[in-house]
Amino acid sequence: MDRLQLFEQIKRKGSYLCVGLDSDVRKIPPHLRSLEDPLFEFNKQIIDATQDYCVAYKPNIAFYESLGSAGWNSLEKTLSYIPDTILTIADAKRGDIGNSSTLYARAFFERLNFDAITVSPYMGEDSVKPFLQFEGKWVIVLACTSNPGSNDFQLFESKQSGRLLFEEVIMKSQEWAGPDKLMFVTGATAPERIGRARRLAPENFLLVPGIGAQGGDLEVVSSLGMNRECGLLVNATRSVIYASAGADFADAASNEARKIKNRMTEYLDGFLQT
Amino acid sequence: MDRLQLFEQIKRKGSYLCVGLDSDVRKIPPHLRSLEDPLFEFNKQIIDATQDYCVAYKPNIAFYESLGSAGWNSLEKTLSYIPDTILTIADAKRGDIGNSSTLYARAFFERLNFDAITVSPYMGEDSVKPFLQFEGKWVIVLACTSNPGSNDFQLFESKQSGRLLFEEVIMKSQEWAGPDKLMFVTGATAPERIGRARRLAPENFLLVPGIGAQGGDLEVVSSLGMNRECGLLVNATRSVIYASAGADFADAASNEARKIKNRMTEYLDGFLQT
Repeated sequence: MDRLQLFEQIKRKGSYLCVGLDSDVRKIPPHLRSLEDPLFEFNKQIIDATQDYCVAYKPNIAFYESLGSAGWNSLEKTLSYIPDTILTIADAKRGDIGNSSTLYARAFFERLNFDAITVSPYMGEDSVKPFLQFEGKWVIVLACTSNPGSNDFQLFESKQSGRLLFEEVIMKSQEWAGPDKLMFVTGATAPERIGRARRLAPENFLLVPGIGAQGGDLEVVSSLGMNRECGLLVNATRSVIYASAGADFADAASNEARKIKNRMTEYLDGFLQT
Repeated sequence: MDRLQLFEQIKRKGSYLCVGLDSDVRKIPPHLRSLEDPLFEFNKQIIDATQDYCVAYKPNIAFYESLGSAGWNSLEKTLSYIPDTILTIADAKRGDIGNSSTLYARAFFERLNFDAITVSPYMGEDSVKPFLQFEGKWVIVLACTSNPGSNDFQLFESKQSGRLLFEEVIMKSQEWAGPDKLMFVTGATAPERIGRARRLAPENFLLVPGIGAQGGDLEVVSSLGMNRECGLLVNATRSVIYASAGADFADAASNEARKIKNRMTEYLDGFLQT
């Protein structure tokens, strides 16, 4: 899915919601646990319930990898089930060099057919570039994340440029690819960083985790991060997929996703009309 | 395996060699490719051929993950085959937060029973700490890596402290765990960084990739990095496991590993006697 197609989906649905599929066998409703593939069954019902309200799904790979080959099977089935009109993001946070990155890219882009992958920038250019070689696929570089530990190194201020490390990551990465292939992760929990990211990367999509359970504010994020092609994918995970722990989990997820979508439609209409 | 046990193995074998098991189905000798599990058969013969000369094995997870569940099976069998007296390192370079990191840790420490894992520090404390909760397991934090891209961000100089980013990573990480649980990756290709790392982390083991095919020099690395408990695990991959592409690959690997080990014995004896 290219940038224009993504923007078309956003306008069509009035939504820039990404739903995180951090599906945890210990958290899904008890009545699913006796099924042959509980994780896929949970994902399937979540997808059925939320696909009208979101434009992207983002499985966190840790939740699948921790189950070994059974987890990979659930992930494969989930990916096949997601409609082609919805962007799929492997939240893998991989980062290795040369041939190793190429192999990770093959695993996620070719074997599982993800549209996008999150990548850690710590090892620099030759750890990110192999992911950029895949036609029609997106690379989402971690810039400023939504966790407390994001303060440890990402705010490191450069003696030479005066820029913070995450700003340097945003600047440097843009030498490797344009906004048709490159997005950035910018957490919602420190919104001023979204504003800084937007100024340094005016055209790129920003993937924003941290609203909902982590406390980030959708309105603030939207006002600081939106550009004329929306430019935002705002992720919600726990507040949607675990909205209810009972048999009504899919309905509850649907309601939560719709509520977020309705607010997004409002911000989007407001912004695109100005 | 704890620090004392590791040092005992190093003294007993006269070696601080780590052999990288970046086993690539397209690179292993043709006569193995028709077997049921070519990757495991290759690893098994490499392990048989090199285990007297090394103290650690380091499979790069990308090579296994890219094969899906078949790759995970090869990896599981390889881990079971490695003798308990040899340290096993999952070169996974993972880094995510909270529950996701815990799940990665379970996958590698519990399901596969690795002794150690490499972790990317970009997301800070709460991305590294979950790995440190596992009794008797090691966390190896990326400090300065051996690839050209290591110059992009790891050498970022702090306005406040004057330290480079990788030095800050080494300082900060030591607030989270001591040298009995924490090692650092310091590449051999820029040896002055090994000296800097050693000064900032006098007690910690350093995992040093980049000798052999990448051009780092074992003697220089050893003189800059060794401490009184050796404190070094120097990795060689391609120069050992692909020493020959033919039917004699195991003998060739054995010869290469023994040659490196003989030089290591010399440096170790020289250092420990002073």
